[in-house]
Amino acid sequence: MRIRLDVAYDGAGFHGWAAQPGLRTVEGELAAALATVLRVPSVALTCAGRTDSGVHARGQVVHADVDARPEDVEPLVRRLNGVLDADVRVRRAVAAPPGFDARFSALWRRYVYRIADEPALVDPLRRGHVLAWPRQLDPSAMNAAAVALVGEHDFASFCRQREGATTIRTLLDLHLARDDDGLLVAHVRADAFCHSMVRSLVGCLLAIGEGRRDEGWAAQVLAATQRDSAVAVAPAHGLTLEEVAYPPDAELGARVAITRTRRG
Amino acid sequence: MRIRLDVAYDGAGFHGWAAQPGLRTVEGELAAALATVLRVPSVALTCAGRTDSGVHARGQVVHADVDARPEDVEPLVRRLNGVLDADVRVRRAVAAPPGFDARFSALWRRYVYRIADEPALVDPLRRGHVLAWPRQLDPSAMNAAAVALVGEHDFASFCRQREGATTIRTLLDLHLARDDDGLLVAHVRADAFCHSMVRSLVGCLLAIGEGRRDEGWAAQVLAATQRDSAVAVAPAHGLTLEEVAYPPDAELGARVAITRTRRG
Repeated sequence: MRIRLDVAYDGAGFHGWAAQPGLRTVEGELAAALATVLRVPSVALTCAGRTDSGVHARGQVVHADVDARPEDVEPLVRRLNGVLDADVRVRRAVAAPPGFDARFSALWRRYVYRIADEPALVDPLRRGHVLAWPRQLDPSAMNAAAVALVGEHDFASFCRQREGATTIRTLLDLHLARDDDGLLVAHVRADAFCHSMVRSLVGCLLAIGEGRRDEGWAAQVLAATQRDSAVAVAPAHGLTLEEVAYPPDAELGARVAITRTRRG
Repeated sequence: MRIRLDVAYDGAGFHGWAAQPGLRTVEGELAAALATVLRVPSVALTCAGRTDSGVHARGQVVHADVDARPEDVEPLVRRLNGVLDADVRVRRAVAAPPGFDARFSALWRRYVYRIADEPALVDPLRRGHVLAWPRQLDPSAMNAAAVALVGEHDFASFCRQREGATTIRTLLDLHLARDDDGLLVAHVRADAFCHSMVRSLVGCLLAIGEGRRDEGWAAQVLAATQRDSAVAVAPAHGLTLEEVAYPPDAELGARVAITRTRRG
């Protein structure tokens, strides 16, 4: 049967999601824990968002095809957390609905990038997942710039290129807002993201927020459809995968065919 | 001149606030940083809440009497943060108003104790300052019990005894509420706290929240006015000093005389 796991992790201790020989990764730790708990040699995992080294997740979604009875699925939460280190937690385990694929069924992924842009906002308790920025930022300039990026575009300027892979994505949301603690939070949502895309978008907006670039620069970078060395990739630790959305269960089977060509 | 510093820290790396020879403490680190920046041999600090080992602060308030010009005070934020490690941050530095004493002028201290009482709430990014509790808690039972504790009482049952020191305090608020993330948060506010008082109050309510004790137990423990071994002291890492309140500047001088007998 296929199970769905909702997973949260502190990216600081991991070389990203994807398993790599000899490196501690979220996929590696979670697959090993599942194999231990289910007493099988190995388990293959598929996730919604292959987060980079140092990037965190609160709402990562994973599926695995395992040999288990329905009544054994929910207890996996406690059993897996008993085996895993405290920097990765399984928050929910359920039987996946028919047709569910953690990667290909996803409607969108939502990331958040948190920034403390003045000393009064820097919180040592959150320093692991909030970027401390030494100068005040102007969110209205950043939001004005972001408008040009929303929609379906070729985001090659914001992607680490891969031979032959499409860099066309639909950016559904990109805006900045202060949260209750006063932090400046970039909300970023798309059907899917290419490699380093969220951090490149944020890096571009940081330059605009400080006044080093004007509001029109983001649109210029986008239109160039090639990486611009002036766009810094923002540090990984400010970024968190917050949520992945899926269609209603009844629509799951139909969706697979449409989105199979897109990278999670 | 007297300066006021607003300070935040991650308690994990400190043996509490109070300086102790050979141990890393917040007072020790901050006093050393201030001495470095001001180029003096040492600086004496007074704080609003002498937090225990492992307890965090977002709103600690400190005063120090230093030889500085008024225009040098605000830049202390950047200069001190440049010297301090990232687990303690100075969020604000101002000239203290006349009569201000970080400890004796305080009207009240507000602490928060955060609890994740089901797997779906456990967030690895916040594991350093949220207690993961293995069983679901009943906040309504805890709130019913807490009512009996609010007000002026002898809190000897919840205090680590010190010879001759009063254990009478005015508990201004004690209640539990779910925050936006679903965490169960104990809000605790008093004119002042004796040693380990917040964590003992929370420990008492945890027993009630799990159903190991009934709602009337908190009142019984209070009335006994002596420590009860059945009251566990909740772990330090769930506790954060969030805020210290002071009267308006014009009332500061008068207040000192009234509160001098109370321990911060």
